[in-house]
Amino acid sequence: MAAMDPLKLAAAVKTGHRKALAQAITLVESSKPEHRDRAAALLAALSPAKASALRLGISGAPGVGKSTFIEAFGLRLIEAGHRVAVLAIDPSSKRGGGAILGDKTRMPELARQDAAFIRPSPAGATLGGVARRTREAILLAEAAGFDRIIVETVGVGQSETAVADLVDLFLLLIAPAGGDELQGLKRGIVELADLLLINKADGDLEPAARRAVADYAQALGLLRHDQPPAVLAVSALERRGLEAVDAAVAQRLAAMTATGEIGGRRAAQAKAALWAEIGDALLERLKADPAVQRLLQRLEAAVEAGTTTPEAAACEILNEFLLTPP
Amino acid sequence: MAAMDPLKLAAAVKTGHRKALAQAITLVESSKPEHRDRAAALLAALSPAKASALRLGISGAPGVGKSTFIEAFGLRLIEAGHRVAVLAIDPSSKRGGGAILGDKTRMPELARQDAAFIRPSPAGATLGGVARRTREAILLAEAAGFDRIIVETVGVGQSETAVADLVDLFLLLIAPAGGDELQGLKRGIVELADLLLINKADGDLEPAARRAVADYAQALGLLRHDQPPAVLAVSALERRGLEAVDAAVAQRLAAMTATGEIGGRRAAQAKAALWAEIGDALLERLKADPAVQRLLQRLEAAVEAGTTTPEAAACEILNEFLLTPP
Repeated sequence: MAAMDPLKLAAAVKTGHRKALAQAITLVESSKPEHRDRAAALLAALSPAKASALRLGISGAPGVGKSTFIEAFGLRLIEAGHRVAVLAIDPSSKRGGGAILGDKTRMPELARQDAAFIRPSPAGATLGGVARRTREAILLAEAAGFDRIIVETVGVGQSETAVADLVDLFLLLIAPAGGDELQGLKRGIVELADLLLINKADGDLEPAARRAVADYAQALGLLRHDQPPAVLAVSALERRGLEAVDAAVAQRLAAMTATGEIGGRRAAQAKAALWAEIGDALLERLKADPAVQRLLQRLEAAVEAGTTTPEAAACEILNEFLLTPP
Repeated sequence: MAAMDPLKLAAAVKTGHRKALAQAITLVESSKPEHRDRAAALLAALSPAKASALRLGISGAPGVGKSTFIEAFGLRLIEAGHRVAVLAIDPSSKRGGGAILGDKTRMPELARQDAAFIRPSPAGATLGGVARRTREAILLAEAAGFDRIIVETVGVGQSETAVADLVDLFLLLIAPAGGDELQGLKRGIVELADLLLINKADGDLEPAARRAVADYAQALGLLRHDQPPAVLAVSALERRGLEAVDAAVAQRLAAMTATGEIGGRRAAQAKAALWAEIGDALLERLKADPAVQRLLQRLEAAVEAGTTTPEAAACEILNEFLLTPP
């Protein structure tokens, strides 16, 4: 791959070749400067994303059944004629240790499908870096003809807001009340959901799941007056309740397409990403400046101790940074 | 005021003189460069904030009874020996038109107290600007001996997260269910609250308020597993239920002081403010660069249309900015 021409790789991606897509994603994931240049050429050679592709975020605490759900839901989408790409965001994941999101072995049946592409989370990256890479991986998967992109994340960290900013719809999986699975769910994450799925509505847990649907619907109706999300019971294990998820997603997609919201939302996401990139890159350069580093140590401590104000310290640091030649 | 020496002004503020405090806040609110310099000298001349002062954020939709509550609660605090400063954040407010938060005429009884200081929201400022000014106004009020700082905001805009980042405890006022007052409450704001107060627990609305307490307590218990806030019924009008608010605030303050959380939280807030200031100022300078402005127009449109990626555009803009001499 190291020597492959970005234009040739772009052409191979466009044919829908999964190996080419995997290579392309590896290229955009690389942080080596020479790879970044080739990644930029690759992305520039691909056409802009089609609005016909749908980007779905799926999150939930460990143990809630995300893999089982994505496998069942992905297979349904493929049966309906879609091509499904699963991309994972998990800044905490380390290759070779612990659970790795998007790992193919977690979704064996889906992984065997020709119309499916499953990509584990890149390891050892910062949240900002993962968000950028995932944004680019979405574009690549769409260019390769995948029209249902599932971005998977664990609902316990800081990555959920980033995922919500990358997708058209955000689905949250929750286990019926009382389970330990709930403990780790991050404050604020329920607020991000466009659709809440109470999983494990099967066997002994089915009555608890039905009650949880009613409880969450009531709670969200109370706390989110603008647009409370639908709450549905599903059994990923027994693959039940998925047609209602399909219908809810299709309904939301139709509404967003009819009003032009989907295009507007993506344009706004891209613009926000541009400014996030600019802001991140500026701060990175500032932090790398040796004169700034010397100042920072003293000024950060003074700000934390309250002996100087954030504004005065910021002013001093900025003057140092912008008056030093690059 | 224009000619007053910042060191003399600092000395006057420290005596607790309300007129001097008002002048000092006007100085830090000014965006004129020569005032900024004198404001910096003023702030530098004051001692760091004492942990004995408590910073309370209070928010709620228009019509929920914020003024009535703050007046009643503020008078209680003064009776208990505290000195109370009320500062308002409302980036949308315009002087001379519409409701102005913190306006003294909304809290006539409190405004007459020697131990109270009420400051309306500065008009025509950006959110970032208002947050910085309020942060500095808090420091000034504390330097003037006010030990209960109430930062008031309307719960419908973008200022609530900013307020939550300025205070030790965030209180949210809500009206009993069914009222039009609820419609405007912003998504996500309930998540920020450390204490939820159902106001108007009086007259015909009292039963509805009691039910609302139970409903919100249940909803928040379901959605916030980490630390659901206490939910209390109050009648600001009849000044009932306030002792329970006092007790809840005192309990939370004691816990935060015992664990050192209050100091840690303030240090983290100050550090976050430093980086927000640096980020804002860097972006401001970047946007003011004429060469960048020419690029931006074209690249923002390309990013929104999907014909270039946010990263590629950010890279081009950054190179232009940092290679141009300041």
